[in-house]
Amino acid sequence: MNLPLQLNRGATAPLQDQLFEQLRQLILTGKLKPNSRIIATRFLAEQVGVSRTTVLLAYERLISEGYLETRPAVGTFVCSTPPQQPKPNSAHNSFSDVPRQASLHPALFHGSLPPRPPLPEGIIDFSPSRFDASHLLPAKTWLQGMRNVFEREPNGLAKAQSAAGVVSLRQALVDYLAGTRGIMASPEQVIIVVGRRQACSLVAHLFQRRGDRVVVESPGEEEIVGFFKARNADLIHVSVDEHGLETERLPQGPVSLAYVTPARQNPLGGTMPQSRRGLLLEWAREAGAYLIEDDCDSEFRYHGTTPQPLAALDPYGLVFYIGSFAKTLGAGLGLGYLVAPSEFVDAIVAIKSLAEDGCPWLEQMVVADLLASGEYDHHLRRVRKVYLDRRDCLIHALRTQFGDVRLVGTEIGTQMTWLLPERFSSAREICDAARIQGLNIEGVVCESCTPAGNFRYHDKALRFGYAALTTEQLRHGIGRLASAIST
Amino acid sequence: MNLPLQLNRGATAPLQDQLFEQLRQLILTGKLKPNSRIIATRFLAEQVGVSRTTVLLAYERLISEGYLETRPAVGTFVCSTPPQQPKPNSAHNSFSDVPRQASLHPALFHGSLPPRPPLPEGIIDFSPSRFDASHLLPAKTWLQGMRNVFEREPNGLAKAQSAAGVVSLRQALVDYLAGTRGIMASPEQVIIVVGRRQACSLVAHLFQRRGDRVVVESPGEEEIVGFFKARNADLIHVSVDEHGLETERLPQGPVSLAYVTPARQNPLGGTMPQSRRGLLLEWAREAGAYLIEDDCDSEFRYHGTTPQPLAALDPYGLVFYIGSFAKTLGAGLGLGYLVAPSEFVDAIVAIKSLAEDGCPWLEQMVVADLLASGEYDHHLRRVRKVYLDRRDCLIHALRTQFGDVRLVGTEIGTQMTWLLPERFSSAREICDAARIQGLNIEGVVCESCTPAGNFRYHDKALRFGYAALTTEQLRHGIGRLASAIST
Repeated sequence: MNLPLQLNRGATAPLQDQLFEQLRQLILTGKLKPNSRIIATRFLAEQVGVSRTTVLLAYERLISEGYLETRPAVGTFVCSTPPQQPKPNSAHNSFSDVPRQASLHPALFHGSLPPRPPLPEGIIDFSPSRFDASHLLPAKTWLQGMRNVFEREPNGLAKAQSAAGVVSLRQALVDYLAGTRGIMASPEQVIIVVGRRQACSLVAHLFQRRGDRVVVESPGEEEIVGFFKARNADLIHVSVDEHGLETERLPQGPVSLAYVTPARQNPLGGTMPQSRRGLLLEWAREAGAYLIEDDCDSEFRYHGTTPQPLAALDPYGLVFYIGSFAKTLGAGLGLGYLVAPSEFVDAIVAIKSLAEDGCPWLEQMVVADLLASGEYDHHLRRVRKVYLDRRDCLIHALRTQFGDVRLVGTEIGTQMTWLLPERFSSAREICDAARIQGLNIEGVVCESCTPAGNFRYHDKALRFGYAALTTEQLRHGIGRLASAIST
Repeated sequence: MNLPLQLNRGATAPLQDQLFEQLRQLILTGKLKPNSRIIATRFLAEQVGVSRTTVLLAYERLISEGYLETRPAVGTFVCSTPPQQPKPNSAHNSFSDVPRQASLHPALFHGSLPPRPPLPEGIIDFSPSRFDASHLLPAKTWLQGMRNVFEREPNGLAKAQSAAGVVSLRQALVDYLAGTRGIMASPEQVIIVVGRRQACSLVAHLFQRRGDRVVVESPGEEEIVGFFKARNADLIHVSVDEHGLETERLPQGPVSLAYVTPARQNPLGGTMPQSRRGLLLEWAREAGAYLIEDDCDSEFRYHGTTPQPLAALDPYGLVFYIGSFAKTLGAGLGLGYLVAPSEFVDAIVAIKSLAEDGCPWLEQMVVADLLASGEYDHHLRRVRKVYLDRRDCLIHALRTQFGDVRLVGTEIGTQMTWLLPERFSSAREICDAARIQGLNIEGVVCESCTPAGNFRYHDKALRFGYAALTTEQLRHGIGRLASAIST
């Protein structure tokens, strides 16, 4: 059976939402009859030419909202009594609104994180999420570190791990954070996590439930916005400028959580000044909100000083601080940390130990040694130097080609944003033209996570990640960009 | 302020529940007034002599049920309008029953996993969860494996990991599971997890919501029962005998999930025969239940053959199969796997990628190599031989001291259960007497997870873990046990 579906790839609504809405309409109008079997995800994916995940997520949402139901071992069916009225915005539904027949599949998940399509060979890729071996420790250092750990604790691998992490790593992080970020924490407050997504998940479990208001930055990160969307948060997108979150636009009334990136706003690049940090903390206290401070990129500051992180300024015990080794030692390491206010440590650890079994022991031990011996510092200095060269080269190349460019976020991190002059075409057109020239460049606005009109640089900003490009590739790439823009 | 609390350590109700109930009564009877500040967890813990975690979890539950509320930066207070009537069993509440003022702290967590107190030096510890270096790979093998991986993929650590795991490990597991367990799966169906708790958590996210019926084995494992309790499941404890779960006692009516250990029932030790496996699958289909099959210990079978796992027999796509390297390569490795029915793979991976960031790359790569090269098999054969010696020694020592003992679970795993003769004292009394003799031995019944009267071997069974004890320690320990029992 071919379903009468029409997906519009040019539309702003994601394909998954279009699919959900069209299937829902087919059910509401009776074109798909109660108790009829629905086409398998694989076949529908082929029919409409989207990924199976897209179809599956649309089905999951239809199931969770009571339009479809899965009958074990036989397939997915239209519910015998699908909802008669269009449902109100699901973010505001309580669990009890979901019809009982959906109980076998209470999919918590309404969002998708589609994989990036692979790029053709030879392309120069400015994607900000790319890293290369230049930021990794030499294999020799890892192997030596592991040998040392095995010698010191030959039985270490035999023991089950604490969900909170290895004590020596937590202790080493306390010293590191005190010395580099001014954060005074006890080892108990430091909880080792797989990465920032897990950290967010733990904090959200504690404070955010379906329909709660959650503040995110706009433009923000697809990964984070998608995460809270999937948890059915009532998202409040607060716009950012060149100095990070615009605190004067923070909402009135109660808010459960706010996810912020004061060190380097992701993606635009601004560093939040001290004054806004104070206002943000006062607002949080007022709103009853807890803050998740993602201190991403603070390891790579090239000049100027970063204001103290919120976690160091916080007089109220509201800040959950997130750091990670993903950009400094490698995303494949799967190691990050969450610093929680004392009163919530036990609850976070309890939630974590119910959800999983603790991070691997060996990497934690080695990283603890790297931190304690100063080798990590040494490594950061080396990498910072590599990135500084690449950054300078990129700025120089952009100025050479385009004159007095307006750049944001150059002083920290591994990417910068070019705010395009008004006379230029839109970022989207430039990205398309650049692709023909063999370049991958992204704009700043993530459509699925930035409400239209909420961002003044909409379509007038380009992002350049430079961590994984040599100075030669950078010069060459910006040369190609000049051709793309002039044609 | 000292609160009038009386905790009874001899009672069957956990201290945390007693604390919750007594505080609740103080609020309901107005002895704790609305809007009054409640004593800090630290101080209350000192006052009543329990751990701070116990107090914190009682508070969290009071918060989540609307009796207390946390006011950011100031403390925890009795709600201005606490519930007037005692709440019905919270497992049956829907989210919307929870008063709105609790929204800042929707603690999902009502259970606790208290740490085991450390044992004095010189004690012989039969605790079944203990392992030692005898089951670990030599450090040399690990280091060589890691060196090979670094040489082959020098940039490997730079890349973010797929939440589903490294492809080569998933492929290697497909071959391993087909060869050793008869499970025919595609690499897509194999999802790498930190351990079985994470695996359970992923499956539960998909199928189990507050108040849903979940079947667990009785006696079962504290960790697993506590997990589902914390998720507010309506737990159905189905008793086991020497042949695993008693399928004829499975409940009528709809059930969301059942957690089963057919290879070696944990803790009693029986292996479920083929006939019961068939009945279990039919029941699951009937009840609309999905099965979590924990195939723990199947690597260590000393004689006889294990019936095929449910995952290999399942005609309906109902079985989620869990395996782990915790007992074979070390719990500190933090590596396990979940094999999911095809139709749920995308959803599981989507949920996993929202919750965290993927397991570490290096260990996955090395373990994939160990599996593919046959080195893992070789390692298992070696370890099995060590455990077989210990097992034989333990059986012999028990027979020498106590005659024709009735043992369960000797043919598989790293522990056995002794079903005590009727004339013996209770298991609890024997464990207490054994402790005086310098032994740590546990009974089979976990009080917090086995409803009273639900287990015929109640207090007439002892568990002996032997993985971490040398033959000398085993002989010596059973000798001491004989003294303990005869005195």
